[in-house]
Amino acid sequence: MLRDRVRRKALLDKVVSAEEAASLVKNGSRLGMSGFTRAGEAKVVPPALVERAKNDGLKIELFTGASLGNDMDGKMAAAHLLTRRSPFQADPVMRKAINNGEIMFIDQHLSLTAEAMRADQIKKVDTAVIEACAITEDGYIVPTSSVGNSATFALDADQVIVELNLAHTDQLEGMHDVYIPEKRPNRTPIRINSTMDRIGVPYFAVDPSKIAAIVETNIPDSAANNLPPDEETAQIAGHLLDFLKNEVKQGRLTHSLRPMQCGIGTIANAVMSGFQDSPFYDLEMYSEVLQDSTFELFESGKLLRASTTSFSLSAATNDHVMANLASFKEKIVLRPQEISNNPEISRRLGLICINTALEFDIYGNVNSTHVGGTHMMNGIGGSGDFARSGQMSIFVTKSIAKEGKISSIVPMVAHIDHTEHDVAVVATEIGLADLRGLAPRERAPLIIKNCVHPLYRDMITDYYERAVKRGGHTPHLLEEAFSWHVNLASKGTML
Amino acid sequence: MLRDRVRRKALLDKVVSAEEAASLVKNGSRLGMSGFTRAGEAKVVPPALVERAKNDGLKIELFTGASLGNDMDGKMAAAHLLTRRSPFQADPVMRKAINNGEIMFIDQHLSLTAEAMRADQIKKVDTAVIEACAITEDGYIVPTSSVGNSATFALDADQVIVELNLAHTDQLEGMHDVYIPEKRPNRTPIRINSTMDRIGVPYFAVDPSKIAAIVETNIPDSAANNLPPDEETAQIAGHLLDFLKNEVKQGRLTHSLRPMQCGIGTIANAVMSGFQDSPFYDLEMYSEVLQDSTFELFESGKLLRASTTSFSLSAATNDHVMANLASFKEKIVLRPQEISNNPEISRRLGLICINTALEFDIYGNVNSTHVGGTHMMNGIGGSGDFARSGQMSIFVTKSIAKEGKISSIVPMVAHIDHTEHDVAVVATEIGLADLRGLAPRERAPLIIKNCVHPLYRDMITDYYERAVKRGGHTPHLLEEAFSWHVNLASKGTML
Ligand SMILES: CC(C)(COP(=O)(O)OP(=O)(O)OC[C@H]1O[C@@H](n2cnc3c(N)ncnc32)[C@H](O)[C@@H]1OP(=O)(O)O)[C@@H](O)C(=O)NCCC(=O)NCCS
Ligand SMILES: CC(C)(COP(=O)(O)OP(=O)(O)OC[C@H]1O[C@@H](n2cnc3c(N)ncnc32)[C@H](O)[C@@H]1OP(=O)(O)O)[C@@H](O)C(=O)NCCC(=O)NCCS
Repeated sequence: MLRDRVRRKALLDKVVSAEEAASLVKNGSRLGMSGFTRAGEAKVVPPALVERAKNDGLKIELFTGASLGNDMDGKMAAAHLLTRRSPFQADPVMRKAINNGEIMFIDQHLSLTAEAMRADQIKKVDTAVIEACAITEDGYIVPTSSVGNSATFALDADQVIVELNLAHTDQLEGMHDVYIPEKRPNRTPIRINSTMDRIGVPYFAVDPSKIAAIVETNIPDSAANNLPPDEETAQIAGHLLDFLKNEVKQGRLTHSLRPMQCGIGTIANAVMSGFQDSPFYDLEMYSEVLQDSTFELFESGKLLRASTTSFSLSAATNDHVMANLASFKEKIVLRPQEISNNPEISRRLGLICINTALEFDIYGNVNSTHVGGTHMMNGIGGSGDFARSGQMSIFVTKSIAKEGKISSIVPMVAHIDHTEHDVAVVATEIGLADLRGLAPRERAPLIIKNCVHPLYRDMITDYYERAVKRGGHTPHLLEEAFSWHVNLASKGTML
Repeated sequence: MLRDRVRRKALLDKVVSAEEAASLVKNGSRLGMSGFTRAGEAKVVPPALVERAKNDGLKIELFTGASLGNDMDGKMAAAHLLTRRSPFQADPVMRKAINNGEIMFIDQHLSLTAEAMRADQIKKVDTAVIEACAITEDGYIVPTSSVGNSATFALDADQVIVELNLAHTDQLEGMHDVYIPEKRPNRTPIRINSTMDRIGVPYFAVDPSKIAAIVETNIPDSAANNLPPDEETAQIAGHLLDFLKNEVKQGRLTHSLRPMQCGIGTIANAVMSGFQDSPFYDLEMYSEVLQDSTFELFESGKLLRASTTSFSLSAATNDHVMANLASFKEKIVLRPQEISNNPEISRRLGLICINTALEFDIYGNVNSTHVGGTHMMNGIGGSGDFARSGQMSIFVTKSIAKEGKISSIVPMVAHIDHTEHDVAVVATEIGLADLRGLAPRERAPLIIKNCVHPLYRDMITDYYERAVKRGGHTPHLLEEAFSWHVNLASKGTML
C-alpha cells in the first residue's frame, strides 16, 4: 500500500520509523508542519518529538498552517517542546502555556506567514514535517486534507520529513491547486478571477533529495468540535438572512450573493447552516475552511463550488465526504492559505465575509482573540485577511456569554483585532446593525438598540449618553471604559 | 485661454459663474469633489456653496479624495454646509465640528470609498465637482494635481460641474493614468507589476452630456504646511536608515530597497528627506502623496520614479516642479487613490510603508487618529491600506509631545487604528524597535528600551512589570491602562 503511494521508488529507501525521523530534528530548530484547523497535520512525528522533549529536553519553534488535530498542540505544550508557535492554535493546554509566558506566540494574519518568510521578514523554517497522500514519480509531495503553509515550508526547508498517511483516500490527489507568488520584484498578478480558477500544480514541487525521511501512518484526522446550531445561532442566522434578502430586494446583491468566506467555530458554522432555508441559490464559497455546513449546502444544491485551504468536519460528515470525494472533485479546490486568504483575491471577488467576535463595542470595533483583553483564546486567524478586503465584512456573536455574566457588546473592547473601519455589519441573536456609511455617533445607538442583550441595554445606554456629553468623534469615558471587564474580573460578572 | 483648454467646443455653452454652478446643487445632495491633501480641489464652487449655506441654509453630504486646500473644509464647516464628510479631512475648524457631533465623519481607508460606492455598499454621489486642466475633444475631463476619487465621482454622478483652472500648467495632461477596476463579478487583476506601469487613460471618460456647468478659475493650489525637519525628525530618520542599512547588509534588501510609501505630515516628510544622505539609490515610490522630500530625492538622482495620487508641496517646491513638469513626465504617474492605495498592488510590489502615529503602545498597537482616544485629528487616510499589505510596515513618531506632558508611547493606546499584526517596526528619536517575529512579551521590553523617552521609562516599565505578574498573552492592568490619558485630561500631564 505504501509502495503504491510512493511512486518515486528510489525514495522508498527513506522510509523510517517516526522515532528515526524525529531524531533528524536538531535542538532549537524552526519546524514548519502541515495542518490547518485539525486537518492534514503530521500524526506521528510530533508525538515522537514530544517523547524527545521528555527524554532529551528537545526545544523547537513551530510554524504551521493553523491549529492542529489529534491534540497535537496540547501534547507538545504539555511536554514543553515549544519555545515559539505561529501563526494560530486553538488548544486549551497550549493556550495556558501562551498565557503564562512559556510559549512565545506570534499571532499572525494567516495569509502572511509564508509571504513574510519568502521576503525574509521572518526567518525561514529549517525542517518541514508534511503529511502526504502520495509522492509522485518526480518525488513531489501530494498533500492531504489541508494545504496551509506546507508548500512554502517544504520548499524552504533544508530537510523535509514526509508522513505518508494511508488513512487518507487517494482521491484527494488532483484536488489541490498549489501556486506560490513569485519572489519580489518579479511578482505578477495572482490570476484567480473566479472561485474555481486553477493556476498551479496539484503537488509541492520539492527537490526530492531534500526528502530526508518518509514515515508511514494510518491515522485519520480528528473531528471538528463545533457544537450544533442552537436557538440563538439560528436567530443570528435569521437576522443575517433577512438582511441579505433585503440587499437583494434593493438590487445591491443577486440571488447568488457574492462568494462567501466563513470563519471557524460553532457560531460561524451554524450561521452558514442557516443558508439551507434561504431563498439564495447558486452560491459559492471562497474561504479558508469548509465546515459541515458547506456540505449540507452542497447536498441541497444551494452551493455550486468552494475554494478552501482545509476541511474541518465532524466525524460523520468527514466519513461521508471522503467516501464520496470523487463527486466533489469538480466542486472543490484546495489552495495554499496564502492564496485562499489573499487580500488581492478577496477584494477582486468581493467576498461576503462572516467571522466571529468574542466581543464588539458600541462603535463596532471587534475583539476576536483576547479574553478579558489579555488572555489569548485562539488567534486572529484569517479574519483580518478577509475583513479588510472583502466586499462586506460581517461579525457575529451571541449577545451574552457565561449565562449572562458577560455582555459581548461592551463600551470599549479590551483588545482590538478589527477596527470599525473593517466592520460593516454586526449581528447577535437580538438583531443586526448595518453600520455601512455611518459615523461612530450613528453606529452606537444602532448597535445598542439592535444587538445588546436587554440585561445590559440600560447600562450601555447610560455609558454612551454620558460619554457623548464629553464630546469627540468617538465619545468615551476613558476612566470607565473597561469597568465592565474589571467588574467581571473582580466580581465575576459585568452586571 | 479657456477656449484652448475646452477642446470640445459645444461645451463652451456650459460656461457659467460659480454661483450659477452652485445653484445646480440640490439641498441634501451627495457631492463628490476632487481634491487630495490640498491638491486639485475645486476652488470657486465650494465657496459659492458656502454662500448658499449662509443664504438659503443649503446642506450637503461631502465626499472627496482626502483633505482639501485653500481652507475649503474649514470654510464649509464654519458655514454649517455639511451634514456628512468622508473619507478624510485635516482642518481645525472641521475637526471641531466633527468632534462636537455636528458633522458625521466617516473615516475610511482611502482605497475603499470608490470601491464601496461601485459595489453599492455606500450610496453613490449625485453631483460631482471636479477641477480640470482641460476637456478633451471627446468631452473627457483631464484632472489637475490630484486624481483622488474624482474618476468614480464623475462617472457615477448624475451631473458634473467642472472647474477649469487655468492656474494649472497644461503640462499636467498625460501624467495621469486613470484605471477603474471592473464591476464584480467581472473583475480582473490590476495589471500593475512595477511602479510606472500604465494601464488606463489620461482622463475621466464621462458622458459629456452630464457636464452641467463649466466654471473658469485661476487659483493655485495652496501650499502644504509641513514644518521643516528638526533635530528629532533627523534622529528618527537616522534610526530608520541604520535599520535599513542593516537589512541590506543581511541580504534582506538591496540598495534600491523596495518601492516606498510614505505618509503625510511633518514627520513622514522629514524622514523621507533623510534618504538624501543615505547609501541607497535607484529608489522608487509607490505612494498616495508626493511631498517636498520626493523632489529633493529626484533632484539628487536618488529617486528614479514615483507613482502617486496627488502632490502636497510647499509653495517654493510647487513653483519649481510645475515650471519644470515636462522633465518629470517620464518619472511620475498620477493614479486614482483606489489604485495608488490598492492592497493588491502594495502587496505585489512589496512596499516599504512609513506612516506616522500619534501614539503607540508597548505592544505596537498604533493610534493615528484620535487625540485622547476620543477626538478626531485627521483620519486614518491610506495608512491602513498600506500597513496591512506592504512588505514592511513602519510607524514613526516623536517620543513625547507638548513639551513632554504627553508620552507618545503609552501602556495601551486609547484608540486603535493599526493592530500589532500590522506593525513591523516602530521608531522615535530615541531609537527603533524591530518587532518582526516577536510575541507581545518580547515586543514590550524592546519598545520600552528603544523608543520610550527617559522621562517615562520607569513609569512604563513599572506598568509592564506589574501587568506581566497577572499573566496573559498581552498583559495589561485594565483598571490602569488609560491612567496616563486620564491624568493628562485632568491634570494636564501624563507625568
Ligand atoms: C471568536 C471565537 C473564539 C468564537 O468561537 P465559537 O466557537 O464560535 O464561539 P463560542 O460562543 O462557542 O465561544 C467560545 C468560548 O468563548 C466564550 N466567550 C464568548 N464570548 C466571550 C466574551 N465576550 N468574553 C469572554 N469569553 C467569551 C464562550 O463562553 C465560549 O467559552 P467556552 O469555550 O468556555 O464554552 C472563534 O471564532 C475564533 O477563534 N475566532 C478568531 C479567528 C477567526 O476569526 N478565524 C476565522 C477566519 S477564517
Ligand atoms: C499622525 C499625524 C497627525 C502626525 O502628523 P505630523 O504632522 O507628522 O506630526 P506632529 O508631530 O506635527 O503632530 C501633529 C500634532 O499632534 C500632536 N501630537 C503628537 N503626538 C500626540 C499624542 N500622543 N497625543 C496628543 N497629541 C499629539 C502634536 O503635538 C501636534 O500638535 P499641534 O498640531 O498642536 O502642534 C498625521 O501623520 C496623520 O494624520 N496621520 C494619519 C493619516 C495617515 O497616516 N495618512 C498617511 C497615509 S499616506
